[in-house]
Amino acid sequence: VRHATAPSTDPADYPFHHDVRVRFAETDAMGIVHHAAYLPYLEEARVEWLERRGHPYPALHAAGSDIAVVEAHVRYVRALRFGDVVRVHVRVPETGRASFAVHYLLTVAGEVAATAVTAHAFVSKDGRPLRVPAWFREAAAAG
Amino acid sequence: VRHATAPSTDPADYPFHHDVRVRFAETDAMGIVHHAAYLPYLEEARVEWLERRGHPYPALHAAGSDIAVVEAHVRYVRALRFGDVVRVHVRVPETGRASFAVHYLLTVAGEVAATAVTAHAFVSKDGRPLRVPAWFREAAAAG
Amino acid sequence: VRHATAPSTDPADYPFHHDVRVRFAETDAMGIVHHAAYLPYLEEARVEWLERRGHPYPALHAAGSDIAVVEAHVRYVRALRFGDVVRVHVRVPETGRASFAVHYLLTVAGEVAATAVTAHAFVSKDGRPLRVPAWFREAAAAG
Amino acid sequence: VRHATAPSTDPADYPFHHDVRVRFAETDAMGIVHHAAYLPYLEEARVEWLERRGHPYPALHAAGSDIAVVEAHVRYVRALRFGDVVRVHVRVPETGRASFAVHYLLTVAGEVAATAVTAHAFVSKDGRPLRVPAWFREAAAAG
Repeated sequence: VRHATAPSTDPADYPFHHDVRVRFAETDAMGIVHHAAYLPYLEEARVEWLERRGHPYPALHAAGSDIAVVEAHVRYVRALRFGDVVRVHVRVPETGRASFAVHYLLTVAGEVAATAVTAHAFVSKDGRPLRVPAWFREAAAAG
Repeated sequence: VRHATAPSTDPADYPFHHDVRVRFAETDAMGIVHHAAYLPYLEEARVEWLERRGHPYPALHAAGSDIAVVEAHVRYVRALRFGDVVRVHVRVPETGRASFAVHYLLTVAGEVAATAVTAHAFVSKDGRPLRVPAWFREAAAAG
Repeated sequence: VRHATAPSTDPADYPFHHDVRVRFAETDAMGIVHHAAYLPYLEEARVEWLERRGHPYPALHAAGSDIAVVEAHVRYVRALRFGDVVRVHVRVPETGRASFAVHYLLTVAGEVAATAVTAHAFVSKDGRPLRVPAWFREAAAAG
Repeated sequence: VRHATAPSTDPADYPFHHDVRVRFAETDAMGIVHHAAYLPYLEEARVEWLERRGHPYPALHAAGSDIAVVEAHVRYVRALRFGDVVRVHVRVPETGRASFAVHYLLTVAGEVAATAVTAHAFVSKDGRPLRVPAWFREAAAAG
């Protein structure tokens, strides 16, 4: 999988979104959301996407496989603040045999706040790489 | 185990201490360390105490038992700020058959910043309660 | 304010609740939600309670006052797991002149998972104590 | 500043390092350090680098400027586990007028665990961009 493509900043390019409300605990002494707190937002949206596609992550985990994060890349455009409702747009642009990438666009009231890409691999419980399963490929193709 | 006794605010009552440096990620929009960030400080100091007593937590975990947190109580006296070196004083005042309590005093440059008590139980990997082992009782008695 | 009363384990005693979904980022290597992650759940529910009572926290903050956490006490009864929907029941049992306490009951599918008490003080932006405002007292009395 | 260059995996290319010990709170239900927890490690190492170069971040902050994170990119190579001592190697390969990049190599016992790049801008307290100050440029050039 090539992750080189920059994620789109047009919400229309994303088939799915999930809203997250900023917690006070996620802010820092600059008065804004700490940059590390974005990764759990992406994860929550990704998990929600999987679930809406009929594959709840806990079931996946119970079935003996996991989705490892092999790369994460965030571009911070506008600060997020306590109380903001962050819309996390999600898209799985392409999947390879061994890995796949997810693109994200974060908006607050329609304004771009951040873009992100994460790259993942399916792994067994003891960490060995697995092929990306057919159902995942289909879910991704369905948008 | 009775956890009713308030933890002492005198560092001399604590046989062990461990220093933690406040991370920027742990501050919040009030400009101070978020109250939830204290619990990992207590945990880090507790783990360090165990290790210095000859029982590194990873070995304990590998041997099939875990130490569950059954209660946590923190009193916040003075705010902690980014860059502060927090001295976490640790004491295990008494151990029962099934559980034990740990007392903490947090100081910055000698000033009391917080006190805390956590209560714990030894459990098997599948969560069943275990008796507090003899070695732990001895480590606690040794201070 | 006396915080000695234990929080009720009967949901009927709580006039308000807020649901939180457990994030994978909040779990730990014991496979359950880390004990420190509960405090942001309580905070999110408290903030939501304030907002439903007509006093969004960001407005409060913008108006120059803050609500400091002076104490937090959690009893962990049953572990929380990734994907659980945690119902955080909230109640403000009594308010004093200078401080107030909040009681919490956490349930998953109707089962008690934890109880908690936090104690708070209103403070100015530079940290000086303020009296608990009349509107807060009324909101608390209204349940 | 171009951030395209991949960070080196050779510790000899890094003039500075800082050790971080993995906390239990940073692990997740896969038994490894959660991917979001790496960003505070990078931040801690960056702050330490600044301090050793004679510019403690709190002083910088008190003087009215902040260092914003505009981009973060992590490649996760080997999992980190509870108790691991992570050596975070730090390098500031080049600085532009308005921004700079930091490269990181994370190793555990000499093995590569991750590489990362963060991009930053100096900003005033109200978020306006500032030029990268001369002292920073000199500190970066000094390695």
